[in-house]
Amino acid sequence: MFSETDHAAMQQALALAARGMFITTPNPRVGCVLTKGGKVIGEGYTQPAGQDHAEIQALKNAAARGIDPAGATAYVTLEPCSHFGRTPPCADALVRAGVKRVVAAMEDPNPTVSGRGLQRLRDAGIDVRCGLLEKEARDLNIGFVSRMTRGLPWVRVKVAASLDGGTALHDGTSQWITGQAARDDGHAWRARACAILTGIGTVRDDDPQLTVRAIDTPRQPQRVLIDSRLEVPLDARMLTPDTGEFAKPVLVFCAIDDRARRTALEARGAEVVVLPNAHGKVELRRMLEELGRRGINELHVEAGFKLNGSLIREGCADELLVYLAPRLLGDAQGMFNLPPLARLQDAPAFRWHDVRQIGDDLRLIARRHPAG
Amino acid sequence: MFSETDHAAMQQALALAARGMFITTPNPRVGCVLTKGGKVIGEGYTQPAGQDHAEIQALKNAAARGIDPAGATAYVTLEPCSHFGRTPPCADALVRAGVKRVVAAMEDPNPTVSGRGLQRLRDAGIDVRCGLLEKEARDLNIGFVSRMTRGLPWVRVKVAASLDGGTALHDGTSQWITGQAARDDGHAWRARACAILTGIGTVRDDDPQLTVRAIDTPRQPQRVLIDSRLEVPLDARMLTPDTGEFAKPVLVFCAIDDRARRTALEARGAEVVVLPNAHGKVELRRMLEELGRRGINELHVEAGFKLNGSLIREGCADELLVYLAPRLLGDAQGMFNLPPLARLQDAPAFRWHDVRQIGDDLRLIARRHPAG
Repeated sequence: MFSETDHAAMQQALALAARGMFITTPNPRVGCVLTKGGKVIGEGYTQPAGQDHAEIQALKNAAARGIDPAGATAYVTLEPCSHFGRTPPCADALVRAGVKRVVAAMEDPNPTVSGRGLQRLRDAGIDVRCGLLEKEARDLNIGFVSRMTRGLPWVRVKVAASLDGGTALHDGTSQWITGQAARDDGHAWRARACAILTGIGTVRDDDPQLTVRAIDTPRQPQRVLIDSRLEVPLDARMLTPDTGEFAKPVLVFCAIDDRARRTALEARGAEVVVLPNAHGKVELRRMLEELGRRGINELHVEAGFKLNGSLIREGCADELLVYLAPRLLGDAQGMFNLPPLARLQDAPAFRWHDVRQIGDDLRLIARRHPAG
Repeated sequence: MFSETDHAAMQQALALAARGMFITTPNPRVGCVLTKGGKVIGEGYTQPAGQDHAEIQALKNAAARGIDPAGATAYVTLEPCSHFGRTPPCADALVRAGVKRVVAAMEDPNPTVSGRGLQRLRDAGIDVRCGLLEKEARDLNIGFVSRMTRGLPWVRVKVAASLDGGTALHDGTSQWITGQAARDDGHAWRARACAILTGIGTVRDDDPQLTVRAIDTPRQPQRVLIDSRLEVPLDARMLTPDTGEFAKPVLVFCAIDDRARRTALEARGAEVVVLPNAHGKVELRRMLEELGRRGINELHVEAGFKLNGSLIREGCADELLVYLAPRLLGDAQGMFNLPPLARLQDAPAFRWHDVRQIGDDLRLIARRHPAG
């Protein structure tokens, strides 16, 4: 069904899509390659929200090369949109340009529009194929797919630990268990996330900035804090307002409606959301729904033992991103605050997704199994 | 210095050597390939102790093919021996056979004989080269090298744990954290070891047989128990005598000289060695020296939290063989009983040596760093 040429062009489209890794949010990362007579005549990838989608960029790129896209094949990593959002429908643009074949890696994951873009292309007489390198395309937009299909962000919990599962000494010391290369790699994962979540315990222990520094990015992820009793100090580093082009306020989820604290935090530039559960903590599932409504695709969690454990217990962690240092901490703080199990088979189950060495450390990625 | 042909032949010699993985102890695993006119004319690998070394097997193999080895090149994964042990010197056999070139992967690691075999070959006018694929050759005989250079076995500590470092529930349940493929792989590591070590706690909790079952091997590793107060029940499964061709008694190391218990254990076929330290425990370092004296190259440890921790604390663990299941045990027994650290930089340090997926689990191998 798909030729070697098709595969190569889609690989290129995926690589283009990845160039939008840090900027497209809340939109998906999409790449587009136009070929004609066996040659690439246009390339594009999705720009920041409100600007061009990949298909439009690729058509403009062909025009800039002085090549007419009529009769071309378009390779897109996601079904072209068929609706007017902040930009006109890409499917129409491809029809108008006279492309004769469209190969998509995957359908739009939004069940209410899925297949409509491809249908519009087919209705215009275009030869449409779908499903080439679909797995790779889904992975690239795992957060967008999650939000479209579940209304929830894809929750990635990052942990740096010793080989024996220690994350901090009992006095809270955790800097640095892993090496520089692992920390830099962690910043690349921060950069691709729409938001970074932490808890009040981590703010107290480490006072992190929760910004991307080791990686060059035009956009800082939104910072999100879970602080049930609104105890965050106003001079906490993570409350420093983002002054970048894509700035969003720091979001503070809490379980109490304390007007004075709230006003002080708002004066600091933060936004406070009250979402209590029955135990005086933040209702995590509703928090994720709220983040989903706000367009958060990938949520990157850098928190401590307690919040990590709560996320696991409440079934809110989709992926574990674990940097494992080849050292032993022995009697130390663990990764996840989870109660003793009665039976081994009750252990929360994941599956290994990716494993590689980063500097002197290992990076292990595990995903929830079965996927939620 | 070494040609592609040399590399290929030495790779083949290494593969032959690996065929002796389970049988050569206490001798090293050695492979030999004879080539002449660009063709392989003989292959061999070390047989069980007292039988042919690799070189003799390869010469016999050439003879069986009706080919005269005069003028051949011999590829050996270890310097040919120059002394009369249980068999005559292989260096002499190569000289007598008229080979004109010998390529060795590494010198004999025994500092008192290192280089003598190669010198004897050079003295006979043979072109001798050494150092081809040396790292691979050393790894294959890591235990033999350890014993020859340090007088100690290479101590490999095997652990099966959850992603968050749990090895057992608090009630002792640990069967099975990892899957069948990982357990079978663990048996291959048992099989290559000269001896398997456990502690009395594991005997109490799991009553293991400590035999190789998932892998076909003609030789069972010697079983070793650390049991400071000689509390092992006489019907413990690991005391069942080995009835195989290469049978050795179960060794029990203890810290008390209790004649009655000792006699009972001896009647059961075990051998008791008293090696107390100042705290009423077994002196681990001296135990390793004793095992070295007894020709134990690789010591495979399958013990619990406490003995594992003691081995680490006393600097006795050279390698960690960790099967990591993608599950979370939370509040559970850890891998190593180690006291809290005062500073992160005091954490026992290893380096990642090998990482791969085995079934649904990961297998991580870490070696002490810097190597002891």
